[in-house]
Amino acid sequence: MSNRMWGGRFASGPAEIMEEINASIGFDKRLAPQDIRGSLAHVAMLGKAGILPAEDVAKIEAGLKTVQSEIEAGTFEFRRELEDIHMSVESRLREIVGPTAGRLHTARSRNDQVATDMRLWVRDTLDALDAQAADLQQAMAELALKHAGTVMPGFTHLQSAQPVTFGHHLLAYVEMLARDRGRFRDARARLNECPLGAAALAGTSFPIDRHATAASLGFDRPTANSLDSVADRDFALEALSAAAIAAVHLSRFAEEIVVWTSAQFGFVKLSDRFTTGSSIMPQKRNPDAAELVRAKSGRIIGALSGLLIVMKGLPLAYSKDMQEDKEGTFDALQTLSLCLAAMAGMVRDLEPVPEVLRAAAGSGYATATDLADWLVRELGLPFRDAHHVTGRLVGEASSRGIGLEALPLAVMQAEEPRITDAVFAVLGVENSVGSRTSYGGTAPDNVRAQAEAWLKRLAGETA
Amino acid sequence: MSNRMWGGRFASGPAEIMEEINASIGFDKRLAPQDIRGSLAHVAMLGKAGILPAEDVAKIEAGLKTVQSEIEAGTFEFRRELEDIHMSVESRLREIVGPTAGRLHTARSRNDQVATDMRLWVRDTLDALDAQAADLQQAMAELALKHAGTVMPGFTHLQSAQPVTFGHHLLAYVEMLARDRGRFRDARARLNECPLGAAALAGTSFPIDRHATAASLGFDRPTANSLDSVADRDFALEALSAAAIAAVHLSRFAEEIVVWTSAQFGFVKLSDRFTTGSSIMPQKRNPDAAELVRAKSGRIIGALSGLLIVMKGLPLAYSKDMQEDKEGTFDALQTLSLCLAAMAGMVRDLEPVPEVLRAAAGSGYATATDLADWLVRELGLPFRDAHHVTGRLVGEASSRGIGLEALPLAVMQAEEPRITDAVFAVLGVENSVGSRTSYGGTAPDNVRAQAEAWLKRLAGETA
Amino acid sequence: MSNRMWGGRFASGPAEIMEEINASIGFDKRLAPQDIRGSLAHVAMLGKAGILPAEDVAKIEAGLKTVQSEIEAGTFEFRRELEDIHMSVESRLREIVGPTAGRLHTARSRNDQVATDMRLWVRDTLDALDAQAADLQQAMAELALKHAGTVMPGFTHLQSAQPVTFGHHLLAYVEMLARDRGRFRDARARLNECPLGAAALAGTSFPIDRHATAASLGFDRPTANSLDSVADRDFALEALSAAAIAAVHLSRFAEEIVVWTSAQFGFVKLSDRFTTGSSIMPQKRNPDAAELVRAKSGRIIGALSGLLIVMKGLPLAYSKDMQEDKEGTFDALQTLSLCLAAMAGMVRDLEPVPEVLRAAAGSGYATATDLADWLVRELGLPFRDAHHVTGRLVGEASSRGIGLEALPLAVMQAEEPRITDAVFAVLGVENSVGSRTSYGGTAPDNVRAQAEAWLKRLAGETA
Amino acid sequence: MSNRMWGGRFASGPAEIMEEINASIGFDKRLAPQDIRGSLAHVAMLGKAGILPAEDVAKIEAGLKTVQSEIEAGTFEFRRELEDIHMSVESRLREIVGPTAGRLHTARSRNDQVATDMRLWVRDTLDALDAQAADLQQAMAELALKHAGTVMPGFTHLQSAQPVTFGHHLLAYVEMLARDRGRFRDARARLNECPLGAAALAGTSFPIDRHATAASLGFDRPTANSLDSVADRDFALEALSAAAIAAVHLSRFAEEIVVWTSAQFGFVKLSDRFTTGSSIMPQKRNPDAAELVRAKSGRIIGALSGLLIVMKGLPLAYSKDMQEDKEGTFDALQTLSLCLAAMAGMVRDLEPVPEVLRAAAGSGYATATDLADWLVRELGLPFRDAHHVTGRLVGEASSRGIGLEALPLAVMQAEEPRITDAVFAVLGVENSVGSRTSYGGTAPDNVRAQAEAWLKRLAGETA
Repeated sequence: MSNRMWGGRFASGPAEIMEEINASIGFDKRLAPQDIRGSLAHVAMLGKAGILPAEDVAKIEAGLKTVQSEIEAGTFEFRRELEDIHMSVESRLREIVGPTAGRLHTARSRNDQVATDMRLWVRDTLDALDAQAADLQQAMAELALKHAGTVMPGFTHLQSAQPVTFGHHLLAYVEMLARDRGRFRDARARLNECPLGAAALAGTSFPIDRHATAASLGFDRPTANSLDSVADRDFALEALSAAAIAAVHLSRFAEEIVVWTSAQFGFVKLSDRFTTGSSIMPQKRNPDAAELVRAKSGRIIGALSGLLIVMKGLPLAYSKDMQEDKEGTFDALQTLSLCLAAMAGMVRDLEPVPEVLRAAAGSGYATATDLADWLVRELGLPFRDAHHVTGRLVGEASSRGIGLEALPLAVMQAEEPRITDAVFAVLGVENSVGSRTSYGGTAPDNVRAQAEAWLKRLAGETA
Repeated sequence: MSNRMWGGRFASGPAEIMEEINASIGFDKRLAPQDIRGSLAHVAMLGKAGILPAEDVAKIEAGLKTVQSEIEAGTFEFRRELEDIHMSVESRLREIVGPTAGRLHTARSRNDQVATDMRLWVRDTLDALDAQAADLQQAMAELALKHAGTVMPGFTHLQSAQPVTFGHHLLAYVEMLARDRGRFRDARARLNECPLGAAALAGTSFPIDRHATAASLGFDRPTANSLDSVADRDFALEALSAAAIAAVHLSRFAEEIVVWTSAQFGFVKLSDRFTTGSSIMPQKRNPDAAELVRAKSGRIIGALSGLLIVMKGLPLAYSKDMQEDKEGTFDALQTLSLCLAAMAGMVRDLEPVPEVLRAAAGSGYATATDLADWLVRELGLPFRDAHHVTGRLVGEASSRGIGLEALPLAVMQAEEPRITDAVFAVLGVENSVGSRTSYGGTAPDNVRAQAEAWLKRLAGETA
Repeated sequence: MSNRMWGGRFASGPAEIMEEINASIGFDKRLAPQDIRGSLAHVAMLGKAGILPAEDVAKIEAGLKTVQSEIEAGTFEFRRELEDIHMSVESRLREIVGPTAGRLHTARSRNDQVATDMRLWVRDTLDALDAQAADLQQAMAELALKHAGTVMPGFTHLQSAQPVTFGHHLLAYVEMLARDRGRFRDARARLNECPLGAAALAGTSFPIDRHATAASLGFDRPTANSLDSVADRDFALEALSAAAIAAVHLSRFAEEIVVWTSAQFGFVKLSDRFTTGSSIMPQKRNPDAAELVRAKSGRIIGALSGLLIVMKGLPLAYSKDMQEDKEGTFDALQTLSLCLAAMAGMVRDLEPVPEVLRAAAGSGYATATDLADWLVRELGLPFRDAHHVTGRLVGEASSRGIGLEALPLAVMQAEEPRITDAVFAVLGVENSVGSRTSYGGTAPDNVRAQAEAWLKRLAGETA
Repeated sequence: MSNRMWGGRFASGPAEIMEEINASIGFDKRLAPQDIRGSLAHVAMLGKAGILPAEDVAKIEAGLKTVQSEIEAGTFEFRRELEDIHMSVESRLREIVGPTAGRLHTARSRNDQVATDMRLWVRDTLDALDAQAADLQQAMAELALKHAGTVMPGFTHLQSAQPVTFGHHLLAYVEMLARDRGRFRDARARLNECPLGAAALAGTSFPIDRHATAASLGFDRPTANSLDSVADRDFALEALSAAAIAAVHLSRFAEEIVVWTSAQFGFVKLSDRFTTGSSIMPQKRNPDAAELVRAKSGRIIGALSGLLIVMKGLPLAYSKDMQEDKEGTFDALQTLSLCLAAMAGMVRDLEPVPEVLRAAAGSGYATATDLADWLVRELGLPFRDAHHVTGRLVGEASSRGIGLEALPLAVMQAEEPRITDAVFAVLGVENSVGSRTSYGGTAPDNVRAQAEAWLKRLAGETA
């Protein structure tokens, strides 16, 4: 939308207002490559089906390729009075090949054409997002492997609860990204039907071969109902849903980066590539990129809401409301792309500070549950009773201002006589972390194996 | 939430406010069946893994079954001071089996327990929604088959554009529902990993068998990362996304029912089972159920936004914020369930008025594109030229106040001499509709075949 | 945001990604006029307060005016490496006036500067929206006056319920717009405090006069707390809230235009200035502008949600997240401006079709409540009894296929013997409409008086 | 909504589904007090206007008061088959006073009745929220006064930027709450028009006195347009907007409480009244109430989105969609009430830890800007130059591992020879804070004065 406010009655004529609200060329020109791909597939099919003579097909194909190269070269002129990308391309084609251009639009309409273009764009974008998410997984899994044994506090309520490893923490995000990628792929599979040939809304009486155009554009099949083909924007809604969930994942890690780089936490360092400094406070590294990634989840969720609202209560088949699918979808998916790129960059840039993480993991009686578990496992106490014994011992240590591992055995035995020396093996953070060997647990060997498995899987994907 | 406002300083004590904001038993009691299923699976595994002796397992299992039957019988007392469903069940279990109850919580925590319960609830619900969407498809496909040849106007911009059939219109929604069901199933597949055994966040040192509990609860596998297991609510977000898109679909058909049952349209009739009347205007049938279905999309989209916002920027692993996942998810998915039920009822209740639909389809030069297509197909005119000729002929008919089919051949030939008598075959709405034989097009034979294919597929699913 | 997706690891360097995510010059250049106004006010105050010598002030003022004229002339170069509008202006100022430029930033920071710029922009925009909403009220009140007595159906549930007048219907929107304008003005009043001088977040030790800068920029007073001054974006949130509600109002009238211009309703005509036609179906006037106004409510609601999400959970004072306030606010408020302009154009373009409206108002026993009211008023029946008698009489008329006014008196008396000839005076739609003389009711004299009152009030505002 | 999913075709009959989707008694019973107030005002007016005889009025009034006392006593039976609160009350009234009950509904309809009830409820609620926000301001201003001089770091990007005082930080929220209260009051003023007497949508032919009912219900005036009266839900939308912005404010302070109570920050302590502990980690105080307040902003923003979506594109006047205004509005405004109560409790519970705050404020060269300002103010350096000198001095101090205040004068003079001993006066955090005396700045005297002014203003309000 242009950068202006609209004044009162005499400020601008109806024609100007109508052009401003109606024209889509300002944003749908982004669909130019998809529009030309679609037209090439359509005209080739018209030729093979005998609807157009071969010489017309050849002429139109040559013309479309010329338009394509003009667009790629930046010499193509997008004229607002031609309203949208489809009319712009066709109009230029007519200048190049003459009236034959008029045959291209046989057996299709702008309704199925724009639906096809938009599906192609979203499909390309989902593929790109999938690759970027994989790249972020790669960056995280590499760092996780390196820090499979670096202990840090595992938080609940931003309070240290139990020690985990830095690698384990990163792999939680690798799992989230795996689900994000699953959603991108499921969305792609579901959108991968070709609406071209649905025409205005009813299908056509020309003997077209919709399976042929679908195949040549890489779709799995043509859509099954012509009304649905031109009235549907599920593919954009589903892509935006998947993007919104992914953006929330990124916002969570972004929040952690902001908190972890505070002076109070000091858990990690970011170089100045993804921070901004202050010329007078050199120690300050504002985590701007992380803050922006965190914030941009708002924009993406807003775009999802926006398009759901646009589609709500629209009767079939095409209404002009549906033109509003574009700007939000373009912006939101590209925003996610940028956030993924920034996050991958930050992860590659991130340096955990092991000694700070280790110290934080060891403070706060974070191994109290290990003591409780030992009482259950070794002495056979019911869990709730072990819990109570542990509480009393932590209270004792706390009142002495020492850690659990520094509590004399006699003090422990005063509380529960069956406790032996063996208990000290579980009271250190390394022991704690090492003992969590259950499937998915934080034991360094587990983490290392998971990180390696991910790296192998990711390598396999790109091989 | 209880029905009250909170006054100033002296109106209520901190304890009461904290209980009100913190306690979840008011809504998470809905998870009671899932909670008990999870506990039964957990204790059985503890037994098999040798962590608990068989007699303890038997005692706990018997106790849990007693609790279960009390809940089913409605005699179980949910006490607010016990805060949540997990503590409520465990506390009752202790009353029944004594201190052995304390052993049930070995090697798990409330964090993995609630994540498991909630996944089970969402999974059950997705299955139910899938079945309901199938039932609505069934109702629509049956009606579509009956009206495969009933012509009606196909609209763009709520203006009649080309004739279609009523059955074809219904099948557009069957396609939308098919995608909805695909999303429900993909969401189900992705959620179907079991978080039980992730414990508080780090895994556990007990030799538990997470694959066993996962299998016994019908999960495909255990989750792979313990932090992610307790920090993730993707399964709720994805279910809500799928529900929001489905709700938008229903809102579109609801809007059509409202418009179609207006006196001005009169396209369909609804019996008084899904309308409310007016005791003094007996002809009035307010389409209340359709309006409510249309409106309830707002509530479902709001719940999706709400949970995305809750999760935005939350550091790992568990934060209390995540307790806010429940009410919105419960309400939104049940609302969709009700909307699906209401819509299936309305579709079974709906009587199209063929003569009104036919008359509307025939007015407004809705076959103009058929004429244009004929000029292209039979006379070889470029599409854009055929368009212009047609425009002039429609203008001529319009100025005479007659339909295209009533325009004398001579008048047509004055515009384009090569037009012959054969043109009249495409000018009637039945001819128009019948000619749209392209794949997915509205030709009655197509529609009939599609409806039958759907009915067969649906029968196969339930067989 | 630029038009691109970001590839994997090797596709682009960290520097490029950081610049893309961090730089705001692409959108905040829109704040250039506000930025220069703010700087002029600031430097003048620095001079008067004795913080800067007069010659420096004069130099800087002259330089800023040069920058201003360069921007107005379009010769100013916005360079991305300068990141934002503030640095861009200051950098150019330095080129013009040399190192003295460095004195401009005394006793302020980018944090209070951008907060000031943004408030000025939103304030200007709220004023413009208020004027546009007044213009739309004017257009509607003029049409309402003309059609104060044009009867049409009053709908509930899109079912005709009671006759009203077309003017009365329009005045309902004039009331909504009055509330919208009230919200714009309340938002303006609340934002009209000047954050300039809050500096980075703590205030400043320079003896600045914040009341002076506030006054010279047209603010009512300086903000009272420096942390709040730089951390607050309420003014944007409140403007977006007001815009979202206004957009919903416009969406409702837009929906009515779409429904009313359907062939089935035919209530109003729109010229081709706000519709698009079809070259082959000349009678078709797609109400594109109305559909787009309806749709754009989604975008505006999405922007509101988006910014609320951005601000959720942000600790004080400034975080980079807050840079995300701009694009959504700019876009949403300008979108509303465009929608108001389009709607004012459509209203001036709208021609109701009185005979169609009259006929629709008269059908469907829309005067049944008038009969019931007559029975209550003249015969003293309790309302619920009158309701039942009316129901039976409408049933009788309906079974005879005639209107209530055509029912013989004897038939009425068979149902209720006290009914007299006088009843027929209330059964016509004109009588019905004319009788609704209660305050705010639809009686044409009421409507005329209201329309005139509005026109007088609006004339007074602009006088 | 009841707690169930709806199965397929045979699971439940249409009647049950329709009742479930249509009946509102489950939630609109909350409007009982408002409904009876409205009816009492209406019947009194009917009497005074001579529409009902005095004895009928007396009978109905007595009956309504009986119903009222039954509701208050909890003996009133809300029956689902009566659908809504209005029918429930009227039905019970008929049991008590006989057929005269039927006269109560003279000259009104459910449409204006429910609009009146809902406005009364929202108005009452806005008043309650205003009082609660004032109570929270009171709690914050009291704590601010106590800590007007307690220094702490002022953060940007969660990095310490400049020292401020704890009281100053709290007063930022007092300002936010002042704007929230302004919005509650503006919303109240705008809603305070009475729709009663608009009847179904067209007004009425009875000689009612709408000014009288408006006045007796505490409204400023009757609404001006009968269609708008029954079609409008702006008052709920505006209340929800104000609530959403207020919820975002609370979420920000909630986030700060969560971060500040982490072991790493340790800035404040919360007693166990608003935290939950762990029986085995006694030092752990999970800030559950703060986390829930933070989360509940999502629910409130979701409710706002939800109702905007419901209203989008609804034609006038009443549609059943509008019944969806209730649950979301009730829930969201009560949620805000609970959050305000919890936050006021937490603020009264909060104990800052001055020594930790002071130490954090003094680290990280947070007085670097004070040094820069001194160079500008005392030596006349342009701001940008002063910035660079400061940067080099901080760098020097940083490389020596000391604070700025420990840097020898000679070292400073090597960088800028004109620096004197006087500079040390601005390098301590107390000096820094004390120097920020600009209006709204953080100097303790400023803060004390502001806190006292607020306390005086708040005392005046309740006096």
